[in-house]
Amino acid sequence: MFEVRTDLTVEENERVKEQQQSSRGISVSEEAYGEDNIHITTVRIETENAVKTMGKPKGTYITLEAPRMAEDTEDYHRDISEKVAELLHRLIPIGKTPKSILVAGLGNRNVTPDALGPRVVDNLCITRHILKEYGTFAYGKARVEPLCAVAPGVMAQTGMETGEILSGVVREVKPDYLIAIDALAARSLKRLCRTIQISDTGISPGSGVGNHRHSLTAETLGVPVIAIGIPTVVEAATIVQDSMAAFLRELSGHDSASSLEKSWERLNEAEHRELVREMMAPQLNQMFVTSKDIDAQIKQMSYTVSEGINMAFFHS
Amino acid sequence: MFEVRTDLTVEENERVKEQQQSSRGISVSEEAYGEDNIHITTVRIETENAVKTMGKPKGTYITLEAPRMAEDTEDYHRDISEKVAELLHRLIPIGKTPKSILVAGLGNRNVTPDALGPRVVDNLCITRHILKEYGTFAYGKARVEPLCAVAPGVMAQTGMETGEILSGVVREVKPDYLIAIDALAARSLKRLCRTIQISDTGISPGSGVGNHRHSLTAETLGVPVIAIGIPTVVEAATIVQDSMAAFLRELSGHDSASSLEKSWERLNEAEHRELVREMMAPQLNQMFVTSKDIDAQIKQMSYTVSEGINMAFFHS
Amino acid sequence: MFEVRTDLTVEENERVKEQQQSSRGISVSEEAYGEDNIHITTVRIETENAVKTMGKPKGTYITLEAPRMAEDTEDYHRDISEKVAELLHRLIPIGKTPKSILVAGLGNRNVTPDALGPRVVDNLCITRHILKEYGTFAYGKARVEPLCAVAPGVMAQTGMETGEILSGVVREVKPDYLIAIDALAARSLKRLCRTIQISDTGISPGSGVGNHRHSLTAETLGVPVIAIGIPTVVEAATIVQDSMAAFLRELSGHDSASSLEKSWERLNEAEHRELVREMMAPQLNQMFVTSKDIDAQIKQMSYTVSEGINMAFFHS
Amino acid sequence: MFEVRTDLTVEENERVKEQQQSSRGISVSEEAYGEDNIHITTVRIETENAVKTMGKPKGTYITLEAPRMAEDTEDYHRDISEKVAELLHRLIPIGKTPKSILVAGLGNRNVTPDALGPRVVDNLCITRHILKEYGTFAYGKARVEPLCAVAPGVMAQTGMETGEILSGVVREVKPDYLIAIDALAARSLKRLCRTIQISDTGISPGSGVGNHRHSLTAETLGVPVIAIGIPTVVEAATIVQDSMAAFLRELSGHDSASSLEKSWERLNEAEHRELVREMMAPQLNQMFVTSKDIDAQIKQMSYTVSEGINMAFFHS
Repeated sequence: MFEVRTDLTVEENERVKEQQQSSRGISVSEEAYGEDNIHITTVRIETENAVKTMGKPKGTYITLEAPRMAEDTEDYHRDISEKVAELLHRLIPIGKTPKSILVAGLGNRNVTPDALGPRVVDNLCITRHILKEYGTFAYGKARVEPLCAVAPGVMAQTGMETGEILSGVVREVKPDYLIAIDALAARSLKRLCRTIQISDTGISPGSGVGNHRHSLTAETLGVPVIAIGIPTVVEAATIVQDSMAAFLRELSGHDSASSLEKSWERLNEAEHRELVREMMAPQLNQMFVTSKDIDAQIKQMSYTVSEGINMAFFHS
Repeated sequence: MFEVRTDLTVEENERVKEQQQSSRGISVSEEAYGEDNIHITTVRIETENAVKTMGKPKGTYITLEAPRMAEDTEDYHRDISEKVAELLHRLIPIGKTPKSILVAGLGNRNVTPDALGPRVVDNLCITRHILKEYGTFAYGKARVEPLCAVAPGVMAQTGMETGEILSGVVREVKPDYLIAIDALAARSLKRLCRTIQISDTGISPGSGVGNHRHSLTAETLGVPVIAIGIPTVVEAATIVQDSMAAFLRELSGHDSASSLEKSWERLNEAEHRELVREMMAPQLNQMFVTSKDIDAQIKQMSYTVSEGINMAFFHS
Repeated sequence: MFEVRTDLTVEENERVKEQQQSSRGISVSEEAYGEDNIHITTVRIETENAVKTMGKPKGTYITLEAPRMAEDTEDYHRDISEKVAELLHRLIPIGKTPKSILVAGLGNRNVTPDALGPRVVDNLCITRHILKEYGTFAYGKARVEPLCAVAPGVMAQTGMETGEILSGVVREVKPDYLIAIDALAARSLKRLCRTIQISDTGISPGSGVGNHRHSLTAETLGVPVIAIGIPTVVEAATIVQDSMAAFLRELSGHDSASSLEKSWERLNEAEHRELVREMMAPQLNQMFVTSKDIDAQIKQMSYTVSEGINMAFFHS
Repeated sequence: MFEVRTDLTVEENERVKEQQQSSRGISVSEEAYGEDNIHITTVRIETENAVKTMGKPKGTYITLEAPRMAEDTEDYHRDISEKVAELLHRLIPIGKTPKSILVAGLGNRNVTPDALGPRVVDNLCITRHILKEYGTFAYGKARVEPLCAVAPGVMAQTGMETGEILSGVVREVKPDYLIAIDALAARSLKRLCRTIQISDTGISPGSGVGNHRHSLTAETLGVPVIAIGIPTVVEAATIVQDSMAAFLRELSGHDSASSLEKSWERLNEAEHRELVREMMAPQLNQMFVTSKDIDAQIKQMSYTVSEGINMAFFHS
């Protein structure tokens, strides 16, 4: 079953900003690339305090927002791929010794919005076996980091945790870095398929009880884990909550509603979400919401991300 | 783009029942197959008046409900396939002269919940070309109606209306019947992947303005059109509306809400839907809601429906 | 069943050259693009006499040979795409009035070397429905010819001839041109996945008896048909014949063989083929030969051809 | 690149029979299931001497031949599945303690005749994660051995040896048995898609130099490895050799050929193959030969094998 995994840190950041304007141990920097409308936010969570405030582990979280990412414009997507390559270099410094990279395309190839990871793997330029067989001169003057990749599938298909499979492969292949690609759930409709999140903290669902086992981190796997995520679905709770807020705004003219509206407005976003979650039918937890042209968007984005990885580790 | 097409008549029927218990020109009969928990409802819309009440064209609408359809039980699915074959025989009487059948698997193969139609086509026992080449004795003693099939794709893939493609193929191939298989949108979560609707009225979105062109009916195609539909997605509006109702029930204790709740309850279901639709973000029209294990369900149901069609037209 | 369709004209041309050096009514011109190693041969069959000599209908046959086409070099493939676009313009003159184009991706998506056509369709920039809905200004300043496309499948999947389906669609949609993309059989191993053949005569298997019905031509469909073919398989007869010739060369030292070898050498290529065909096991007609990395090659070539078509009809 | 892996032992056995009628240390037993035309041959290689004669490691090699396997007859395929289950029980004794099974579907999903393994995995009834989460009572009275599965892909896709990936997964998951499913190359056209070979010796290409690393055996992986193979391709050398023999038979009337034919006939089969291999173009090693309806056959056979595995380990 398609599991909705981790959330976007940039959304968490917005939530946190609401509560306390500036937080110690959290550094935020922003870059904008005007013409292209590409916006990059880097959040660093540096102290235990910040870990508590953000509810995320220590590390660097980079969010690339590209509002036109859903469009089919070749040049724009090349620009995004170049930025992805650049951001990967910030987290994986390329030095004299080649760094071997294992890419894991997480998710279920047969559920369209969850196919992002496996489809990124399909388009990668795989070099490890060539370098092993023929040495570096197989690629002429190009500087090439040995790249290998796997699409481990999901538990309903394999009967194994993704973490079990990757743990075994990592122990055998001993890469310098694992890059895990995953489809995420966004809270906001407007981020859907328009945001790429890259972090050096791996994937650690953490909060959820039964989910702790799924975490893919340096701790659990023994190598640094870079996570690349793109929101491809929205939580059902989000669309209910947004509509509810609109409903109450709408009714604000009516006498009967005013006090109800006020109680709603006294609650913060997290409380809204909690309230909505309680009222939703339990089956909704087994549901996801996505856009009707998700097939075109997954095709496009998986290509853009795989090109970014290719550019980062195959420097022709 | 994945278009959410027609609704379930059985849901329409429930709505209508609320308003007026018995309506002239609408006949409803029910059958239940106890052990298997298979329930069949046949609605016949016979008069112009009934057409108005139901908002659906004249014809027969058969709904098979099988609450355990989502489970992976081979015998149960064989029972459902047999019922589907039987229901097809009610609408397509098999006589002395073989009836030639064209099956159209509508929808987008690349969007999981919309792939039902194309995947039914994948599993059909195609016989028309064999019968044409070798005659009926190719199949020994089996009685075989010539069956052919096409998965026309969707407009974003082809640039053509499904109706344009099918109209051309029908004119060339001249089948006695067209069977159109399609993924539907349900209003109720509980019907998702548990209901098969079969009707002899084709597909006629009707009400929607711009959609009239899409209709696949005897009128537009020149041959009788049997439609087989299974709800695989739920409208976003549905889940908002359901949660809203729960929200208002919850608040009914509070003074402030009581009058608000009363105004909500004065509205009927259609008005609720209208209200919710107005308040939802416009992007929600570009969204669909489906279950996380939709891949397994589509695989299962497409096999069950194609077996039903095979049983109906290949009588070994 | 995957049908091995038409042959390469450039191979036919070589065969003909052997027999009679210059033939009236056949004009041949060559172009070479040095750095890129792209070689273009244009054969024009202009008279009835030439039709007899070549065994092909009147028309223009352009063959693009790109020895490095099997390699994964982005720039080289862009060059090939540009040439494909240019060659399409030679056969489809773009004037003031937009020309509407229907692309048919022939073949079986589920047999790797036959999937070329369907996969070209997957990557096309489909514009007809957008132009119909929003008019030309939907694409800003770009000059766009309305493009639509269909992957009709093969007879074993549909029970219908490809020609029946396309005939119906053409009659309904009335394009100015049909472009049919198809995987071909080559006689020579060295042409496999290295040659693109474009002609304005459509597809007319002709010689084969039962196959005449399959022809897709201006005559049978009522619109000019441009055929784009790439050899993705080799005939089993070819590899037997080549090995046999080597075998006999090898034996030429032995006394016993010399006269046998001489009889072999007295036969021309066509007679060799005939001889080999007679001796091969009849099951070999149900076989094809292809390369072990055909998946990578089909992926690459289908992208290159679809980019060529996109460039030809979407002039941004 | 699609690697043609191990050969059929039953073919090796035929070759050996030619040379020495009965060999010590090789026991052969045969079973026939009349009505169904299912024939089972069990070869046991028991001594070092036998290992030398057969060129295969010690162990049990069971070959199921079903001449009608290519046909689409549901009952016949159920019979084959039942036999597969029975043969698996001979090699994997099911006792009181459940045996945990890891199935590896080897091969490249994107090259039709090599997709057998991955597609068997698609249809398995995966139970390990359910048993781990809910215990045995999740399946009621059914006796279920915990089953998990992986389709590791091929080196061109992953940059890793299949053996590296499986070694890692096995070490992590610690199954009692590994079952490796693979597409094989047959020497004889008549065995194509009609034979299932099951052995308890794993996969050990052995003879080939560079290939030794690929072996998947109890020695390399640390758990017993059951190999299930079905021939889906034929070696190019085979079809050349068969045609050559026919060619020489044909010429036997001519004086010039008689002595040539005699020299050919003095050679045994292995020498024929060697001779043909030497004369074939080197590119032919990069080629495979398969049947034009391989898509339908792979679909059918992968279903039949997966049902056999399901029956063996899910005893409802």
